[in-house]
Amino acid sequence: MKKMVHAETVRTHEDGTIGMASARKIIIDTDPGQDDAAAIMLAFGSPDELEVLGITTVAGNVPLSLTSRNARIICELCGRPETKVFAGADRPIARKLVTAEHVHGKTGLDGPELDEPTMALQPGHSVDFIIETLRREPEGAVTLCTLGPLTNVGMAFQKAPDIIPRIRELVMMGGGFFEGGNITPAAEFNIYVDPEAADIVFRSGVPIVMMPLDVTHQLLTRKDRVKRMAEIGTAPAKAMVEMLEFFERFDIEKYGSDGGPLHDPTVVAYLLKPELFKGRDCNVEIEIRSELTVGMTVVDWWHVTERKRNAKVMRFVDADGFFDLLIERFARI
Amino acid sequence: MKKMVHAETVRTHEDGTIGMASARKIIIDTDPGQDDAAAIMLAFGSPDELEVLGITTVAGNVPLSLTSRNARIICELCGRPETKVFAGADRPIARKLVTAEHVHGKTGLDGPELDEPTMALQPGHSVDFIIETLRREPEGAVTLCTLGPLTNVGMAFQKAPDIIPRIRELVMMGGGFFEGGNITPAAEFNIYVDPEAADIVFRSGVPIVMMPLDVTHQLLTRKDRVKRMAEIGTAPAKAMVEMLEFFERFDIEKYGSDGGPLHDPTVVAYLLKPELFKGRDCNVEIEIRSELTVGMTVVDWWHVTERKRNAKVMRFVDADGFFDLLIERFARI
Amino acid sequence: MKKMVHAETVRTHEDGTIGMASARKIIIDTDPGQDDAAAIMLAFGSPDELEVLGITTVAGNVPLSLTSRNARIICELCGRPETKVFAGADRPIARKLVTAEHVHGKTGLDGPELDEPTMALQPGHSVDFIIETLRREPEGAVTLCTLGPLTNVGMAFQKAPDIIPRIRELVMMGGGFFEGGNITPAAEFNIYVDPEAADIVFRSGVPIVMMPLDVTHQLLTRKDRVKRMAEIGTAPAKAMVEMLEFFERFDIEKYGSDGGPLHDPTVVAYLLKPELFKGRDCNVEIEIRSELTVGMTVVDWWHVTERKRNAKVMRFVDADGFFDLLIERFARI
Amino acid sequence: MKKMVHAETVRTHEDGTIGMASARKIIIDTDPGQDDAAAIMLAFGSPDELEVLGITTVAGNVPLSLTSRNARIICELCGRPETKVFAGADRPIARKLVTAEHVHGKTGLDGPELDEPTMALQPGHSVDFIIETLRREPEGAVTLCTLGPLTNVGMAFQKAPDIIPRIRELVMMGGGFFEGGNITPAAEFNIYVDPEAADIVFRSGVPIVMMPLDVTHQLLTRKDRVKRMAEIGTAPAKAMVEMLEFFERFDIEKYGSDGGPLHDPTVVAYLLKPELFKGRDCNVEIEIRSELTVGMTVVDWWHVTERKRNAKVMRFVDADGFFDLLIERFARI
Repeated sequence: MKKMVHAETVRTHEDGTIGMASARKIIIDTDPGQDDAAAIMLAFGSPDELEVLGITTVAGNVPLSLTSRNARIICELCGRPETKVFAGADRPIARKLVTAEHVHGKTGLDGPELDEPTMALQPGHSVDFIIETLRREPEGAVTLCTLGPLTNVGMAFQKAPDIIPRIRELVMMGGGFFEGGNITPAAEFNIYVDPEAADIVFRSGVPIVMMPLDVTHQLLTRKDRVKRMAEIGTAPAKAMVEMLEFFERFDIEKYGSDGGPLHDPTVVAYLLKPELFKGRDCNVEIEIRSELTVGMTVVDWWHVTERKRNAKVMRFVDADGFFDLLIERFARI
Repeated sequence: MKKMVHAETVRTHEDGTIGMASARKIIIDTDPGQDDAAAIMLAFGSPDELEVLGITTVAGNVPLSLTSRNARIICELCGRPETKVFAGADRPIARKLVTAEHVHGKTGLDGPELDEPTMALQPGHSVDFIIETLRREPEGAVTLCTLGPLTNVGMAFQKAPDIIPRIRELVMMGGGFFEGGNITPAAEFNIYVDPEAADIVFRSGVPIVMMPLDVTHQLLTRKDRVKRMAEIGTAPAKAMVEMLEFFERFDIEKYGSDGGPLHDPTVVAYLLKPELFKGRDCNVEIEIRSELTVGMTVVDWWHVTERKRNAKVMRFVDADGFFDLLIERFARI
Repeated sequence: MKKMVHAETVRTHEDGTIGMASARKIIIDTDPGQDDAAAIMLAFGSPDELEVLGITTVAGNVPLSLTSRNARIICELCGRPETKVFAGADRPIARKLVTAEHVHGKTGLDGPELDEPTMALQPGHSVDFIIETLRREPEGAVTLCTLGPLTNVGMAFQKAPDIIPRIRELVMMGGGFFEGGNITPAAEFNIYVDPEAADIVFRSGVPIVMMPLDVTHQLLTRKDRVKRMAEIGTAPAKAMVEMLEFFERFDIEKYGSDGGPLHDPTVVAYLLKPELFKGRDCNVEIEIRSELTVGMTVVDWWHVTERKRNAKVMRFVDADGFFDLLIERFARI
Repeated sequence: MKKMVHAETVRTHEDGTIGMASARKIIIDTDPGQDDAAAIMLAFGSPDELEVLGITTVAGNVPLSLTSRNARIICELCGRPETKVFAGADRPIARKLVTAEHVHGKTGLDGPELDEPTMALQPGHSVDFIIETLRREPEGAVTLCTLGPLTNVGMAFQKAPDIIPRIRELVMMGGGFFEGGNITPAAEFNIYVDPEAADIVFRSGVPIVMMPLDVTHQLLTRKDRVKRMAEIGTAPAKAMVEMLEFFERFDIEKYGSDGGPLHDPTVVAYLLKPELFKGRDCNVEIEIRSELTVGMTVVDWWHVTERKRNAKVMRFVDADGFFDLLIERFARI
């Protein structure tokens, strides 16, 4: 019954009328990661708007066994142990895995004390869950939210291209252009880890909304913001605060900024309040040939090429509005 | 029961003793193609030695719908409609599909009149059949025979790397070195179509036997050889003769040779009579970066690099012995 | 005699004393170009500080015959017909020439009416003038100012590597990082035209100061600034105003900004007032392998790699101070 | 006078008539190397047919200082100290120098005891000698014979493209296709050392005759052949025998052959007796992008692409005829 409430519920429309509305169906593909955790928590805190059909894990920030563990820890932390969690690709499509323990710590969720999860992984591979869900759900019903390397999605598109036109939208955290990269001077981590997968996705024709570093570097976990989170006082909020305090130390040291950039929750925030973000329809191509620039998202922001516009690339964000939303929804869990 | 007979049967050993022997279990991954048809026919003609667990199809010589049709036509032509045939990847992992109708004709089996198949495809994807079979069969029991682009195998290795050490051997038709390529000056067709898949396979650690153009260009369908095939007189042999007569015209025109090279049956012939072939353990790397040479199999035949030897690369073949074997086994169907 | 006055003159030192000072010896390598013209004019307007040993032309904004013509037009316009002008490379080292008439107009100096030059080109190739000058002048005496593709300099370094340690500094307009490129999404024009030459220069060990688009896009030819230039009232200033009015239209249309970015004079301005600019010592590598990103200057601004710092990359500029300098010096001609 | 005798001399034509004939004017661009020495000696032994306008040296088998020394040693050994020898590029156009002391020994001419040369190098750079000579001599009069990396020629073509249509023919030792490479599995040494230079040359439109490994590996310094050379009994022949005995040891060990392949003299032999060689007009492109295959000469022998035929690629040689010619001419010195 709980799921029904999430999926279809009474809500006030913009014109003031009250009626039944459907929550938007999403699959979250993720490699948690503290900021992935924040994104998942934001989704769980928004059951009126978002129905999480499943969480699919992928190797990225840390190896697959840890991302699969961490996804379940977050579900349990948020009181959502019924969520379907599937393990996916343990390596990129055509490269050796690179991980980011220097940012996320050894477990990927370093910071708070966290219990090992008790809920089980679902049988089957993330790729097959994505394919089967998209084939089963109505055309245009499901949104893919990707928070890590695009390996699972790229493999699903390769294996079952019939699902591509069935996707409502793919909203991803990944890439960077005017900010450069973070794992190399030219490349952002998620795209760098599996550039071939990203290339498959960007060439697929699926409607893409891209949240690059250009946006996420405007979203710093400043002390005042984290303090407001801490004031929520719940166990999940407390754990999140401890995660963010661990997570931000890397970027504070690197950039000398007063907080770390909060990447992944932008994806879920966009589904809840797209008006927080401003961007432009552009062509985006993925560098897959050069060792120097591999994983770069080459954004044709100024339309200097004839290449087809294949992504809505966000560049500006209302940072205060974003953190207000985050804190409001974290408080609901 | 029939399968039992194939899998384990009474046979005369070389020393004259009689005993129970196990047929070698194989999966044939294929994109028929007239020469794929010859390879499959050679396997079906050798039930004492080879048990065909299944045939998995892939896009290559012609699109997937045709290779899936053609594989079943061949099964029925050989009186083996019980064979499990699975459709697989309809496109390479990270490239657009290139096909070779200029060689194989519009259907891929141009030449004879052939009935549409009546046997059904198995449900499920080739990749999953490969994974499940390797997980189910004893470790080291199954040999992969690949006759087309390595897309299915590459995807299976990516999705389920645990199967890699369970494979007895992967025998492939693909590549070319001292003969150069056939689809471009540097690249052989099977590797060219999906170089990323080939790269996954060659970097995987699986024991590889490679039958490059260097070998297959020594195996010309000369008139006297085709005539002996025609003298078999059976329907399958007759159809095969008509296929080969169509197939060889391309290479006869291109090379001015007296027959076309017979590529794919080398893979099955190697399982039956490895002593027909001579080669060397070498490092092989796949060119995936350069447009000019993409798909090239760079064979370190002279061991001028420190790179690890990852394939047994065949270079010489007893052509008469090969055709004797072929004709003998075709006659058994 | 005039040259002597330029090269060594009476000046007031910072501590108030008066004494003889040497002007800094420079070679200007250029592909004029309206903004090259402004840079040359700035140098000619600063004879106390800068002695122009010669101007070497290269193909870039327009073909070599035009850049060689334009360089002499500017010399004559500034009353400096005794300047040595040498023609250099008519094509990049390893690529086909790309030009930018869409920005600079058909002649490269579109805008004002300009007389054909009467002064002659010097005999010999730019590359040899650069080599001979650096061998003849004292070690550490000569600064190279490059305003176009680095072809001549790259060829000189290749032909005579002994000159590299004799160079005082190479100050270049070229590249872009946080602003992206201008000729492609990833590449700035000067580097894009001859990436191999740029690669030679950045790997050479010469001390480099780089003025990328990141700086030059902060220097817009706003109406108020151009008006002040016009008020100088001299013929050179008038011609420059007409050049800039032509030149800026491209970027105003592209970026919707209120003026075009003034690229090349930054190089000369840096020699006159380095305190106008702020930047950082970084590693810079040139993308020469990938078609998508070729010509990109990959700047390791955040020092995320171990690569050696080989250039002082400017990022911020005092725009008002820059235009004050420009207008003050233009008024001296 | 001696030069006149070489350049234009009394000779018997094929039809038996006697008349004045011009020797063909050649520039030899070289990085000696024992086999370069053999090529130069073959030219010096053929004064009726060939007039050596100059020898230009380049870094390759050994560094430039040694190739410049070695070229002069060979001139003096052959009694031709009046020959003009110019030093050229000490490094490739866009790469770090790779040398081959493992083949040629520390000096490049290891084997015999050789005196240091007493003749001087000419002033000026090889590149400028090539340019000036081609501009001075009648159009179509001069043949370039290249025995090493194409750096000097590539630089000359870049600096003075007007000389390209003035060249009669460029005959090079370089590349390999059906034999693969020698320095890497895919690349022959001369092209590998400076692939950008080779790319400039192959794209230039100059008429090219290419002597690849495919030819030179048929020309083994077998014991009987070397013995015949030794029987000449002159000092130059004796030194050459000792060079070849050193030189061949590398390939004998590598290939297990009975002699080393004699690469560079093929270039001069072609000018003397083109009928010794058989080949085909093909497109040849140079791999410059990929690390794995860089320096490969991709020969479209079977015309599978639409690319323009830009070189006469030799594949077969009359080995006995070649050695007869060599020995006959060595005996004349």
